[in-house]
Amino acid sequence: MSLKKFFCPDSIAIVGAARREGKVGHTILDNIIDFGYKGKIFPINPKAEVIHGMKCYKSILNVPQDIDLAVIVIPSQYVAASIEECGKKNVKGAIIISAGFKETGIEGAKLESQVLETAKKYGIRILGPNCIGISNYSCRLNATFAIGDPVEGGIAFMSQSGALITAILDWATMQEIPISKYVSVGNKSDISEIDMFEFWSKDPKVEVISAYIEGINNGRKFIDMALKVTRKKPIVVIKSGDTSAGSKAVSSHTGTLAGSTKAYSAALKQSGVIRARTVRNLFDYSAAFAYQPLPKGRNIAIITNAGGPGIMATDACEENQINLVNLEEKTVNKLKKFLPAAANFHNPVDVLGDALADRYRKTLEIIFEDKNVDAILILLTPQAMTQILQTAEAIVGTIRDANRKIPVFACFMGGKTVKRGIDYLIHHRIPTYDIPEGAVGTLKVMINYNDWLNRKVDKVKIFDFDKKTVGSIFNSCRKEKRFELGENESRLVLEAYKIRVPRAVTAKDIGTAKEFTKKVGYPVVLKIDSPDILHKTDVGGIKVGIRNDSELEAGFNEIINSVKAKKPDANIRGISIQEMIMDKQETIIGINKDPQFGPVIMFGLGGIYVEILKDVSFRIAPITESDARDMIEEIKTIKLLKGARGAKPSDINSIVEILLKISQLVTDFPEIMEMDINPLFVKAEGLGSIAGDVRIRISQ
Amino acid sequence: MSLKKFFCPDSIAIVGAARREGKVGHTILDNIIDFGYKGKIFPINPKAEVIHGMKCYKSILNVPQDIDLAVIVIPSQYVAASIEECGKKNVKGAIIISAGFKETGIEGAKLESQVLETAKKYGIRILGPNCIGISNYSCRLNATFAIGDPVEGGIAFMSQSGALITAILDWATMQEIPISKYVSVGNKSDISEIDMFEFWSKDPKVEVISAYIEGINNGRKFIDMALKVTRKKPIVVIKSGDTSAGSKAVSSHTGTLAGSTKAYSAALKQSGVIRARTVRNLFDYSAAFAYQPLPKGRNIAIITNAGGPGIMATDACEENQINLVNLEEKTVNKLKKFLPAAANFHNPVDVLGDALADRYRKTLEIIFEDKNVDAILILLTPQAMTQILQTAEAIVGTIRDANRKIPVFACFMGGKTVKRGIDYLIHHRIPTYDIPEGAVGTLKVMINYNDWLNRKVDKVKIFDFDKKTVGSIFNSCRKEKRFELGENESRLVLEAYKIRVPRAVTAKDIGTAKEFTKKVGYPVVLKIDSPDILHKTDVGGIKVGIRNDSELEAGFNEIINSVKAKKPDANIRGISIQEMIMDKQETIIGINKDPQFGPVIMFGLGGIYVEILKDVSFRIAPITESDARDMIEEIKTIKLLKGARGAKPSDINSIVEILLKISQLVTDFPEIMEMDINPLFVKAEGLGSIAGDVRIRISQ
Repeated sequence: MSLKKFFCPDSIAIVGAARREGKVGHTILDNIIDFGYKGKIFPINPKAEVIHGMKCYKSILNVPQDIDLAVIVIPSQYVAASIEECGKKNVKGAIIISAGFKETGIEGAKLESQVLETAKKYGIRILGPNCIGISNYSCRLNATFAIGDPVEGGIAFMSQSGALITAILDWATMQEIPISKYVSVGNKSDISEIDMFEFWSKDPKVEVISAYIEGINNGRKFIDMALKVTRKKPIVVIKSGDTSAGSKAVSSHTGTLAGSTKAYSAALKQSGVIRARTVRNLFDYSAAFAYQPLPKGRNIAIITNAGGPGIMATDACEENQINLVNLEEKTVNKLKKFLPAAANFHNPVDVLGDALADRYRKTLEIIFEDKNVDAILILLTPQAMTQILQTAEAIVGTIRDANRKIPVFACFMGGKTVKRGIDYLIHHRIPTYDIPEGAVGTLKVMINYNDWLNRKVDKVKIFDFDKKTVGSIFNSCRKEKRFELGENESRLVLEAYKIRVPRAVTAKDIGTAKEFTKKVGYPVVLKIDSPDILHKTDVGGIKVGIRNDSELEAGFNEIINSVKAKKPDANIRGISIQEMIMDKQETIIGINKDPQFGPVIMFGLGGIYVEILKDVSFRIAPITESDARDMIEEIKTIKLLKGARGAKPSDINSIVEILLKISQLVTDFPEIMEMDINPLFVKAEGLGSIAGDVRIRISQ
Repeated sequence: MSLKKFFCPDSIAIVGAARREGKVGHTILDNIIDFGYKGKIFPINPKAEVIHGMKCYKSILNVPQDIDLAVIVIPSQYVAASIEECGKKNVKGAIIISAGFKETGIEGAKLESQVLETAKKYGIRILGPNCIGISNYSCRLNATFAIGDPVEGGIAFMSQSGALITAILDWATMQEIPISKYVSVGNKSDISEIDMFEFWSKDPKVEVISAYIEGINNGRKFIDMALKVTRKKPIVVIKSGDTSAGSKAVSSHTGTLAGSTKAYSAALKQSGVIRARTVRNLFDYSAAFAYQPLPKGRNIAIITNAGGPGIMATDACEENQINLVNLEEKTVNKLKKFLPAAANFHNPVDVLGDALADRYRKTLEIIFEDKNVDAILILLTPQAMTQILQTAEAIVGTIRDANRKIPVFACFMGGKTVKRGIDYLIHHRIPTYDIPEGAVGTLKVMINYNDWLNRKVDKVKIFDFDKKTVGSIFNSCRKEKRFELGENESRLVLEAYKIRVPRAVTAKDIGTAKEFTKKVGYPVVLKIDSPDILHKTDVGGIKVGIRNDSELEAGFNEIINSVKAKKPDANIRGISIQEMIMDKQETIIGINKDPQFGPVIMFGLGGIYVEILKDVSFRIAPITESDARDMIEEIKTIKLLKGARGAKPSDINSIVEILLKISQLVTDFPEIMEMDINPLFVKAEGLGSIAGDVRIRISQ
């Protein structure tokens, strides 16, 4: 069933409709009636004859007509039975307001499973339980017990916290934020953010999707959905429970397992979801998207009647990599013609403290025509002569009459004096902020979203690799109850996926060793090869930088002697001789498994960069080529790979290739729980990368 | 003259008092009268007999009584003459409201100098020009043309932008922010932030000093002043024009040269000044300082009636390194006794959505008694049963009756519904925020300030070094018109300040070279020593890692031969043989000269850390030992110095010592314009540091 019947049902039954005021089952019925719902309403309550002058039914089964949506407000232990009746009545959607399910512990979780099973049997979709309901301006539906009504406008809001909805609606009303639909998803036993965002992506009345999320149940499905939706309209979310302390609070609160911070931020980033840090940001961003066109570039023009705020805005622009554009010469000339001599004709344009509305209007008109300008920020401080309301009117009028569509932001700084202007601007859909930094931060988010829309859309490439070999290696490991692969096995896995490893041979005698070095050249590394020796260094089992035949011979013998002395019982297979990779950057590619999102790929420079600076980037596998490039560009030490300090640029293309191969490997084999290529040696441009060492752990 | 007469004059003359409404000279007179100033007022205007029913004087000289303060509102070209008359009348303070001075260009700057000279002649202190005046609640003085009046309370505010004052007052009035004194300093021709902060530090009615600053004229004096003042009360500032684009806007606006970002942030940091990024932060912080006691530690307890906001607050705490404290066992037990079973008795304490005011009250009372708790944050969302105003009253009452004094913050999320509660809280001096992140960010700032107050107070140590040698080296360089010191000269400078350099000798023959290595051992570095060779590598003039006598001999000859072949005309003094420092970390200490603050010291790890990661810290010289330690602790790669990855810890004490020595060197010799010790080799703990290479540039 589409969710349409939840938002625009023809008829609603309120199971647990209550006569007594103050009870939730009463408030919801009240809200539905008061907000002007046009469909049929059927109160259900075995103990009442009439509620609100409406006939009350003992059971939903007694209702003589079809019912689209049931709103259930009865104690948790009776809900499953009520869903059973809904099924029999052929109701296809139910909002379970009642609490007392998963969020209370094991017993509640059992009740929730029962409810869900019953619903599945009949094909009923469930919103909740433990939620405050659903509200939709276009159908005049307010099936919630929240205080606020939705209003006309382009923002849809979903919340995993019911309490937050009441707070946010209250705020939105005061700030005239156009939230026309809102949903509380509660425990998300069935309907989740995935359903909601998909549904809203198809609703032409929804311009922006916004949400408060504590956890996501099906990570990969979320990414795939979001990748599609964010191409059509922006999704702005607060994802809380982000830090480890926050996650603890989440689990004690909603029973959702909050995924690791890194996996969440990688997932949101790679699917184009915009992240808001606070409720204020959430609605600053959402309102701007709903109100204004997207900026086509990052060039801003600022108009101000005071220097100070102009400087603050300029500082904020620089921090956010937004350009204070050079105005066209003809723009400057036009400004010079009518602005007072003391004004600043360049960006930020200072119209001076005595500017009346008309001076603002003319300046704005001229700047609107400047083709260099992608966005305009208008600053105003209330000075002696400032015409607050008239300036607001002039701004709105100029934007309406302008030939070009570019986003305009306003910041009227002050309190009571400027309030009338602010109210007028908001009412006319001009995003308005109390501090310049708010406007600039929002513009930055819009620029990023515009970049996202212009980003290359590429699909995950599928290579044809030797899956069979890898599968049989894993199988034989598991048969032997080994879950950490041996060095040779790991090499074979990489080779099967066409990832280069250093050439190597295990030599039983010095002759074989010399044969190998004749082929691959010097320098080489020597390592003892013995299943009994885990820590090779401790027994003198490693020599690096062997430069010639005589060093090879000496090293070979020294290792054998040292190992025999320190570990006489060890079964020695021989000595592994590996080519030593020179002229390289050391990087690292890692994989770990996130409970919500599956395999997370990490990339960074090796050694101290990863260990101390933690300069790494993450994405959820599988990734596309663009994702891989983003990952590499994201690390702070990227300059080292691009050839800093006169060094040759490293072969970034080969890193991209290996990231994609690893992405496919861990997608093909979900049994890979952890994997580290450390170091991955990256040679100069064109010369490829080689996996110096690899460690793979598979599931039990 | 103390500034007291500016804030509480017994009599004021308004030079340029105007009859016509709308004129600044009229508004100011109006404001002074309307706000209830109790002293004598003398309007001065040659063209009027009576203004506002008051006798008007043709000149200040005609006033029959003494005048404490003159407020001057006449065109800029007449101001100097007016100050002359003030001098003759023995007026000791003047506020020059008039614009048309330095901010308009060269002509204006000339006028400003004239005014200042005249004022100096008579010992008159000047506020402005180009300012909006001064206002002080305690003396019922509002000598400004701003819209808002000061109110009772502990915040004093200074602004370098007049327009911003009007905006901020307007805002402050709406938010009930207790700004009791404010000053617009305009062009700061005489009275600056230094005077203002010092004056306010002695005013017992001022609890917090806040300011908007675009530039500081005398950097070192500012630091010395702030170091003293911040020990007594917090200074919170917005310093704008911080980025390079912002600075451009500053210079076109106020004529103040904005110092470099790094110097400013170093100066504010090392003098304990709290930096606010936005106007909202400025007053969030200031109000909290004015309202609440300082937290004694970083342990917070959170009380909430909804999970979502609790998680957001928890996230924000973790981001700010604030601990969600484990409540004492007895606290948890007490909470269990009366909270519903579904509540969360641990931090964040969830009193549930149906909590009435009394449940909040009891919970708060119990948590107040928990000795582990340093600060409390109370979150509220407006749910069906929530008692907004009563809960606010309960909070205020509990704090009033509590035995302990710890800071309490509130966050009532919502709009109209929660407004009455918010107003009540603010009115009773409880810092209140619309989002949890605002409260937590403010608490963090208070914790930092408390740390600052508890930080060791140490003075700049003065060592007894061989200044004479350094002085004569600089002199002889200057005589020869050389401003970059040679290698040997730089070595001598460091040695004079007891900074270790690698032992070295310039050998003309291999015998001398061997003698040297016999003394200091191997390995050594060989470098050609010739005044004619700048780039030693290009002529094969360097060999590193010489390990024994035979390598020494070979290297010596190779260098000589190579240099002779590639640069036959070069005057070769010999070959410099230096001990090669092994087992070390490479760091860098740099000096450059800031126009406002003088010598700025930089510290960081060498090589790519400084070049690519820009992981460095800055302070203004001279620095104390604590400053030096802070500098070292501030870099992100500090772990490398502390001994990461099994390495021995480096000799951080020796870095501190060298930083202090360099600090003294550049203070003793202001002619040092630039200096780099790069690398500074830091050996393991106890083994000291050695300046590997040093470059010094002195002024012309």
